[in-house]
Amino acid sequence: MGFGCIKPAAGGRMPPRAERPKAALLGLDWGTTSLRGYLIGPGGTILAERAADAGILQIQDRAFAGALIGLAGDWLDRDDSLPIVASGMIGSRQGWVEAPYGEVPAAPGDISLHTLTDFDRPVHVVPGLCRHDEHGVPDVMRGEETQIIGAHDGEMQDGLYLLPGSHSKWARVTAGAITWFATFMTGELFTALKDHTILGRMMAGTAHIPEAFAQGVSFGSRPNSIMRSLFSARTLALFDELGEEDGASYLSGLLIGAEIAEAHAFIPDTNGAPIMIIGNPDLGARYATALSLSGLVGQQAATGAAARGQWRIASAAGILRS
Amino acid sequence: MGFGCIKPAAGGRMPPRAERPKAALLGLDWGTTSLRGYLIGPGGTILAERAADAGILQIQDRAFAGALIGLAGDWLDRDDSLPIVASGMIGSRQGWVEAPYGEVPAAPGDISLHTLTDFDRPVHVVPGLCRHDEHGVPDVMRGEETQIIGAHDGEMQDGLYLLPGSHSKWARVTAGAITWFATFMTGELFTALKDHTILGRMMAGTAHIPEAFAQGVSFGSRPNSIMRSLFSARTLALFDELGEEDGASYLSGLLIGAEIAEAHAFIPDTNGAPIMIIGNPDLGARYATALSLSGLVGQQAATGAAARGQWRIASAAGILRS
Repeated sequence: MGFGCIKPAAGGRMPPRAERPKAALLGLDWGTTSLRGYLIGPGGTILAERAADAGILQIQDRAFAGALIGLAGDWLDRDDSLPIVASGMIGSRQGWVEAPYGEVPAAPGDISLHTLTDFDRPVHVVPGLCRHDEHGVPDVMRGEETQIIGAHDGEMQDGLYLLPGSHSKWARVTAGAITWFATFMTGELFTALKDHTILGRMMAGTAHIPEAFAQGVSFGSRPNSIMRSLFSARTLALFDELGEEDGASYLSGLLIGAEIAEAHAFIPDTNGAPIMIIGNPDLGARYATALSLSGLVGQQAATGAAARGQWRIASAAGILRS
Repeated sequence: MGFGCIKPAAGGRMPPRAERPKAALLGLDWGTTSLRGYLIGPGGTILAERAADAGILQIQDRAFAGALIGLAGDWLDRDDSLPIVASGMIGSRQGWVEAPYGEVPAAPGDISLHTLTDFDRPVHVVPGLCRHDEHGVPDVMRGEETQIIGAHDGEMQDGLYLLPGSHSKWARVTAGAITWFATFMTGELFTALKDHTILGRMMAGTAHIPEAFAQGVSFGSRPNSIMRSLFSARTLALFDELGEEDGASYLSGLLIGAEIAEAHAFIPDTNGAPIMIIGNPDLGARYATALSLSGLVGQQAATGAAARGQWRIASAAGILRS
C-alpha cells in the first residue's frame, strides 16, 4: 500500500510500525474553533491526521498542554525527539503564547519561530504576519501565512493566493516571499447582515442558489457600489424579483463580488495565471465562480497546505531531525 | 404672542381658541417606531405638535384608528372638516393601508394620495416613491419624499438632499421634482458590525470622539475600499493605535465616509451649493463634518420638514379646505 493516503481518523488503528515511514514533524494547525494534528513526513506529506474540538476558544483554564496530549500524546510517547510546530491563533494573545507578528516580505526562512517552553518538549509557534499599508494602517494574518507557503505541491510558487472565510485573505507571493496581503471581513459581514439586519427578514434557508449568487456577484462587483447595493437584497425581494430562498445566495454574491472588485484593484496583470484558492472546497468553488464572473481565474489548491507549510517553515528554521 | 412658536407638548395646554389661527391640515408623520401629529397652518407652519410611541411596529391588532384618536381625537372633535394627511411607513404593507409606490420623477403634484376609508373621515396616505437604476434594480423610500418636498422654508428647491439614519437616503430634486435617490444601509450596518462581529469586542461606549470619527471618514472615503477597510477597526486597536472608547466613532466614520464616497460618484458638480441635511441634528452635524472632509458642503434643513411637505402635497392634491 502507498503511504500518502494513510490518514486514519482520530482513534483509528495505525498500520504496523514497520510499514510506517518516519515522521519528520508533528504539525499543529491550531485555530479559534478547532485543532488539527498532522504527522508529517519528508516533503510535507501527511502521514496521519487527527482533529479535535479544541480550538483556543474552547479550552478552559489555559489547558493547552492537556489538549495537545489528548490529541497526540501517543504519537509523542512513541517518538521522543519528534519536533513540534504549531501555526494559527494558538500564537495569538488569546492562545498558548503570544508570538509577535513578523513583517512582510516574509519567505519561509524569514519566519522566526517562537519557542514555547512550558511543555515537556519545545513547541515551535509560527508567528503571524503584519503589513502596513500606504497610510500606515496595519493588517494581520495568523495561520494563513503557513497555508500560503504550503499551498503548492512541490515548491512554494509566486503568484496570488485567496483564502476565503469569515475574514478572507488575499496575498501575493513574489520571489519566494509573501509581499502583500489584505483582509476582507466578507464572511462575518454576511452573517451579521443576514442575522441582524432587515435583509434577513426576507430570506429563507441558506442553500446555494447559483443564479441568485451570480446575480449578486454581478451587482456587487461594480466598483464603488457596495454600500448602496446592499439594500437591493431587500428591494428585489419587495418587488418579487428575488425569492426568499434566493436571498442568502444573492447577498453572499453581492459581498463576494465587492470583495473581488476591491482586491482586483490591487492585483497586477495576472497574465491568465490562476489565483490559488486555499481552504474549504465548497466555498472555494463559489469564489472560483465569482472570480470567473469578474474576469479572473481561480484554482483550488491541493489539500494539505498547512502541513506542507509547517514542514517548509520547520525545514528553513533547521528544527527537523537531521 | 406669535403663533409660529406654539408647540405645546402632548397633553399640554393649548392657548385659548380665539388666539389660534385656523389649522389647514392634520399631518401625521407615522413611522416604524413613532407617530407624530401636527396641526398645520397656512404655508406648512406647525401650530401644534404631539408625539406618541405608536409606530406601526408597536400597534397591536391593527389598532391604527385607536392610535390616531389617542393622539389627536380632541383636535378632530373640535374641527369636523379638518383634512388628514399621513406619510411614512403607515402606507407600507405592514401599515394601515398599502399605498403603492409612485415613480420618480415626482413633483408634489405628481403624488397621488391613497385615501383610506375605514376611519370616520378620509385619511389621505402619501405613497412612497420607487426608482429603478440602470440595471433595473429598484430602490424605495417612504416618508422621506415628504420631508424632501418640505425641506425648505418658502418653496421647494432644486438641489441635493441627504437624510441620514439606519437607511440613509440621498436624493436629487430637479425642476421641482424628485428625480433620483439612493439608499445606503449605513446606520443598520454600523449597529450590526458593532454588536455582532469581532469589531465590537474592542469597543467601549458610543460617545462621539471627533478625532476618531474624522480618521474613519478619511480611510472610509477612499474609493472602492470599504470591504478591506473594515478590518482596520480591529487591527488599529490591536496595535494600540485606536483606544477602546474611539472604536465606535472610528467605525461610524469609516461607514459614513464610504457612503459619501459612493454617493459622491452620482453627484453632478454642486457648484458649492450645500447638500440639505434633513433629520436628527446631532447625526446631521456628523454628516456635515464628513461631507466637509470629503470636499462637499452640508447644511442642516430647518425643522418641520415633514409638516411642510405634507402641506405642500395636500395643497397640490387640492384637499385643503378652500
